Amino acid sequence: MSTALQEGKRSISSIIDKEINPFVDKWEEEGQFPAHKVFKTLGQAGFLGVDKPTEYGGMGLDFSYSIAVAEELGSIRCGGIPMAIGVQAGMATPALTRFGSDELKKQFLTPTISGDLVACLGISEAGAGSDVASIKTTAVRKGDEYVINGGKMWTTSGCQADWMCLLANTSEGHPHQNKSLICLPMNLPGIHITKKIDKLGMRSSDTAQIFFEDVRVPSKNLIGEEGMGFTYQMLQFQEERLWGVATVLTPLETIIQETIDYTRQRKAFDQSVLQNQVVHFRLAELATEVELLRSLLYRTIALYVEGNDVTKFASMAKLKAGRLAREVTDSCLQFWGGMGFTSEVLVSRFYRDLRLVSIGGGTDETMLSMICKYMETLPRK
Amino acid sequence: MSTALQEGKRSISSIIDKEINPFVDKWEEEGQFPAHKVFKTLGQAGFLGVDKPTEYGGMGLDFSYSIAVAEELGSIRCGGIPMAIGVQAGMATPALTRFGSDELKKQFLTPTISGDLVACLGISEAGAGSDVASIKTTAVRKGDEYVINGGKMWTTSGCQADWMCLLANTSEGHPHQNKSLICLPMNLPGIHITKKIDKLGMRSSDTAQIFFEDVRVPSKNLIGEEGMGFTYQMLQFQEERLWGVATVLTPLETIIQETIDYTRQRKAFDQSVLQNQVVHFRLAELATEVELLRSLLYRTIALYVEGNDVTKFASMAKLKAGRLAREVTDSCLQFWGGMGFTSEVLVSRFYRDLRLVSIGGGTDETMLSMICKYMETLPRK
Amino acid sequence: MSTALQEGKRSISSIIDKEINPFVDKWEEEGQFPAHKVFKTLGQAGFLGVDKPTEYGGMGLDFSYSIAVAEELGSIRCGGIPMAIGVQAGMATPALTRFGSDELKKQFLTPTISGDLVACLGISEAGAGSDVASIKTTAVRKGDEYVINGGKMWTTSGCQADWMCLLANTSEGHPHQNKSLICLPMNLPGIHITKKIDKLGMRSSDTAQIFFEDVRVPSKNLIGEEGMGFTYQMLQFQEERLWGVATVLTPLETIIQETIDYTRQRKAFDQSVLQNQVVHFRLAELATEVELLRSLLYRTIALYVEGNDVTKFASMAKLKAGRLAREVTDSCLQFWGGMGFTSEVLVSRFYRDLRLVSIGGGTDETMLSMICKYMETLPRK
Amino acid sequence: MSTALQEGKRSISSIIDKEINPFVDKWEEEGQFPAHKVFKTLGQAGFLGVDKPTEYGGMGLDFSYSIAVAEELGSIRCGGIPMAIGVQAGMATPALTRFGSDELKKQFLTPTISGDLVACLGISEAGAGSDVASIKTTAVRKGDEYVINGGKMWTTSGCQADWMCLLANTSEGHPHQNKSLICLPMNLPGIHITKKIDKLGMRSSDTAQIFFEDVRVPSKNLIGEEGMGFTYQMLQFQEERLWGVATVLTPLETIIQETIDYTRQRKAFDQSVLQNQVVHFRLAELATEVELLRSLLYRTIALYVEGNDVTKFASMAKLKAGRLAREVTDSCLQFWGGMGFTSEVLVSRFYRDLRLVSIGGGTDETMLSMICKYMETLPRK
Repeated sequence: MSTALQEGKRSISSIIDKEINPFVDKWEEEGQFPAHKVFKTLGQAGFLGVDKPTEYGGMGLDFSYSIAVAEELGSIRCGGIPMAIGVQAGMATPALTRFGSDELKKQFLTPTISGDLVACLGISEAGAGSDVASIKTTAVRKGDEYVINGGKMWTTSGCQADWMCLLANTSEGHPHQNKSLICLPMNLPGIHITKKIDKLGMRSSDTAQIFFEDVRVPSKNLIGEEGMGFTYQMLQFQEERLWGVATVLTPLETIIQETIDYTRQRKAFDQSVLQNQVVHFRLAELATEVELLRSLLYRTIALYVEGNDVTKFASMAKLKAGRLAREVTDSCLQFWGGMGFTSEVLVSRFYRDLRLVSIGGGTDETMLSMICKYMETLPRK
Repeated sequence: MSTALQEGKRSISSIIDKEINPFVDKWEEEGQFPAHKVFKTLGQAGFLGVDKPTEYGGMGLDFSYSIAVAEELGSIRCGGIPMAIGVQAGMATPALTRFGSDELKKQFLTPTISGDLVACLGISEAGAGSDVASIKTTAVRKGDEYVINGGKMWTTSGCQADWMCLLANTSEGHPHQNKSLICLPMNLPGIHITKKIDKLGMRSSDTAQIFFEDVRVPSKNLIGEEGMGFTYQMLQFQEERLWGVATVLTPLETIIQETIDYTRQRKAFDQSVLQNQVVHFRLAELATEVELLRSLLYRTIALYVEGNDVTKFASMAKLKAGRLAREVTDSCLQFWGGMGFTSEVLVSRFYRDLRLVSIGGGTDETMLSMICKYMETLPRK
Repeated sequence: MSTALQEGKRSISSIIDKEINPFVDKWEEEGQFPAHKVFKTLGQAGFLGVDKPTEYGGMGLDFSYSIAVAEELGSIRCGGIPMAIGVQAGMATPALTRFGSDELKKQFLTPTISGDLVACLGISEAGAGSDVASIKTTAVRKGDEYVINGGKMWTTSGCQADWMCLLANTSEGHPHQNKSLICLPMNLPGIHITKKIDKLGMRSSDTAQIFFEDVRVPSKNLIGEEGMGFTYQMLQFQEERLWGVATVLTPLETIIQETIDYTRQRKAFDQSVLQNQVVHFRLAELATEVELLRSLLYRTIALYVEGNDVTKFASMAKLKAGRLAREVTDSCLQFWGGMGFTSEVLVSRFYRDLRLVSIGGGTDETMLSMICKYMETLPRK
Repeated sequence: MSTALQEGKRSISSIIDKEINPFVDKWEEEGQFPAHKVFKTLGQAGFLGVDKPTEYGGMGLDFSYSIAVAEELGSIRCGGIPMAIGVQAGMATPALTRFGSDELKKQFLTPTISGDLVACLGISEAGAGSDVASIKTTAVRKGDEYVINGGKMWTTSGCQADWMCLLANTSEGHPHQNKSLICLPMNLPGIHITKKIDKLGMRSSDTAQIFFEDVRVPSKNLIGEEGMGFTYQMLQFQEERLWGVATVLTPLETIIQETIDYTRQRKAFDQSVLQNQVVHFRLAELATEVELLRSLLYRTIALYVEGNDVTKFASMAKLKAGRLAREVTDSCLQFWGGMGFTSEVLVSRFYRDLRLVSIGGGTDETMLSMICKYMETLPRK
């Protein structure tokens, strides 16, 4: 590992230890963390634009460095904040970076990288989660503006975001060719945040339901070409999924290690709980699966950085991450006995938080469909 | 099914619909349900003493009727309240009923059956959960009193209970022969409720951590014989476990059915979610496992009512109930997509609540040890 | 348990110990057991017609006694012979018994019950296994004969059977209404046994592939009404599946017990293999699942004997039996180490033999479809 | 991939297609393949010494090339022959290569690499499989000879081997420090091959039980230092396990692909079997797990070639390989319906053959112990 990378890791680690972890319990309780404050700190240290071009404030490194940062963020003692950072640093901006105009990037990308603006991603709707093609929100061109109507659901950071990378239907026609991505400032008239969704986990990250009523946005806020939104978003998803996998690895290892530590000192039936073969063998099985996932992630990242299409491998890694997160948290929680059922231990928080991995960013079943598509086993409709 | 039983079921059902379910969300939010009020209603209708002797206000029926009530209580839309009712009606009083003096039963059993007093069960301690033999609380005989020191943990209804069925060490000696059960009024000096434990689930049921500092209780509050407490409690556990299994069946069926209903009307990728073969096949697998569990429960109850030792089967049923509850809630939640991750749906509440089944009343691993003991495969220490 | 039943069990047990088990290894090696000889012994003792009418040589008992016999047959040290007995005693004759003419029953049922004739069941075809409706064999009415063309596959005992209960298309039309069951003597011209199929397991039971070329059979050999064959066969399947489940229980328990015995005396790493917690806990889990299955079977049989439609429960039991058989044999084999991989131990034979349970008599997936049909979750075609 | 490597793969592929696969069915039937003939062919092409020094006939490449060959050998249509090649090329000779005298290498290594001699590995005994430390065979130094008594079990190629890499106790003392590896010609007086073991699978590879009765071998046949045998063998195991994992990957992919092909053309219930979502989704899950395993193997090999201790990762990969092989073969076999239960299809052969992966070369449970040792969670004895 290069010294620069090691230094970077130490730097993130220090921010997490000083600026984030001491406040996590409070933010979880409050149902929201202060994104502007936290992102500003991370942005000043450079961690919100690791793989973004230097002319917009990024570090100009390749995507593998972004993944290294994501892994490091796994030391945050909840799932919600790394997820929100992911939206800011990795999910809302790849299309803007690749296809946006210079003006648009200066307006939205630069301050997002510096942490001055909080970004959100407006894809899912009440009637369309993993099935992105069937969204209903429209952006109708009127003169040099788009007029937006509809609504978004499950929007991470939506209650405090300054702008949204919005996917909307800009025409009739085939659902893969009628969509566009638009940079939408969130302070425009007609944008109503109707609900902060009360969730099972990821509680320090706010999730909004948002309605649009004749919201007018300049047409130059379009990212790239009109009609290309679905395609751009599919590309964007690839990085989102890999990022998501990367942020899960450290939490899983932390939980396994904390379970080892707890069961080692905890006595029951005249011995340490860890001495039970079902306990230490089970933890070894889980550690094995985590190493398998890590190996696939690294192999996939290497292929991606070399320029390959890694949709199949990224889908496989995402699928495994979701299932493994459920398995690790559930199995480890068991070994904590009554303590595992309290809100005082990390394992019960991650049991709730990481349940999302199998759902968000495309459900397990959506991943399976993607893999089948690449295996050429999916039936034609 | 007899008409009396059917009528009884309708009566419980009506109480649940009118007096309980409309308030569950509020009580979950508040972290406690009003046990005195709810138990008074249930007690007046006779449901807190179904299998208790008529001279103390019970119905004098056999245990299978108690189990029928437990199943019916599964219609309550949370896990915490049925659990607390279970403590009141089934877990805190079997030893008292069987071995207590007439005076003690009049003082504690009769008002518990009528719902005038709220009972709790003081077994687990901070250092001893499933490993009951290693509790540290002492009750030292001084004249015609016991002086109690120590503490209890994970005490269901402990914050509002009027009395506790307490297990304490009344002498030195072999841990299976030095314990006694004592009826302990909770308003005595020296009883400190130090914490209401913040739990992952079962949030409408309060769980206390309690300390005892020179608490003095009359020695006539001893249940049965001194030194027999461990043995009594092991007997008591058998009914507790069967009750626990019975209360899980209805929630699992409800969740499966609500998942069918939700996925039937929910569209994704141009069809109802239920039409996906992985969805309806998976639900069929889960329904199969629930019927398996129900079959074992019924077979076990029939054997128990006939007077057999059913420890092995009760342990098997408890083990399966815990694991199946995790499997059903986790699998069903998945099919709700984003909605499953909100606090608005029953499946996410039961995902949290029923996680306790594998831990409380003896962990899965404790059940496995019991089964091994009966299979004669457990190594001698 | 009644004395008659106990005596019956002792009698079967004695036949198995003297007339069957000593020869199983040899018959497995040879790929066929002598059905005529074994069936004659069982028939004389009455075990091939336990639930058949006394006027045709049966015992006239209800189906639960048949199931008790099936369980007892599980003591045979292979899966093939109980399966072949099942075809003879339970699968080839229910429709004949219920719907056949008196003459037909005298000709085929009576000698099948006495063990003088060996029966087989001709349903599956090369292109139609679990999907019974799509069979292609035709029986065309010509005068007072049927002329049969086509072929059957996977026919248990087909190489030595004297007659077949044949399902064939007797007309065009809806596949559920164009089929008939016919008693077909196997020595007629035009019947060609083209292959004894070489199978993974069940090696002592021969399995035939059979072709029909203008085979002429009297039309009075029709069972019941023409066109009702599919319906009759679906009824017949119900008993077949319950029988199949019953024959699996004893083998699974035997394997678990033999694994306990073997691992108890086998030393590795300075202790008996059984002392490993993963070994005795795993065996306890498997024993739990076997008791679950047994409980569902008994509950289903009781409902069936009372006259209920138990298709859903029978399908659930069959599904579980298939999956559990794979789980038990695979898990136990592991604990035998190298010995488990030899052909010398029962566990490796049942590992091969019982793999069929998830396939024969309707695959697991077919069972899931049936359950879904009863849960009303199966999509309309 | 380098051209040399590609050429090498083509060359192996051609040998497999012409010299091996056409005869596999016959050899499986006969219970033995002609090792001398097949090894001579492979040896002449250089594939038995890929990572061995050129002075003894090897190619002098690093271990990753050996693994590439192992993967390629997975195209052989049975598990037994790749396993026997593995013993010859990878398992019997690492210690000899690293620690043996030049004379010993000339005598045994060179002709093993050229395919003139067939090698076997004598570690396991009737009372000691995975627990290598507890073997009982002794080699007592008498003058300049060792006199060997005892026996070996589960010896792959033992019926046709020319020499054995024998592990024996050469002194009393701590079981990790009293063993030695010795090159033992198999034609010496006193060596009795008492049995060719009849196995569940791997039938084309002979497995011997062997007894030694005062077998005398020159003391210069000792590999390296006396007393170091256990240590050498543990090192040797590392490569054995990685080789084993590599040979499993191709079979698993082949089975998945053949299952896709079969179910695509196979119709049931009016559609191709593959169109069932449970079929194509399940195959996607299995393919995902295979990629996970492959990724861990590649990561481990890269670390090993760089000189790291990879015992933990090798044990993890071996554990996963064993479990996944059972899962893939069992799941795929199911989708073949009745055909899966015949001996005519590859899936049923690999269902039997690959069951060994969880047992041979150290059982799954032994792997778990190794992983626990590295996680520092194994209890002290």
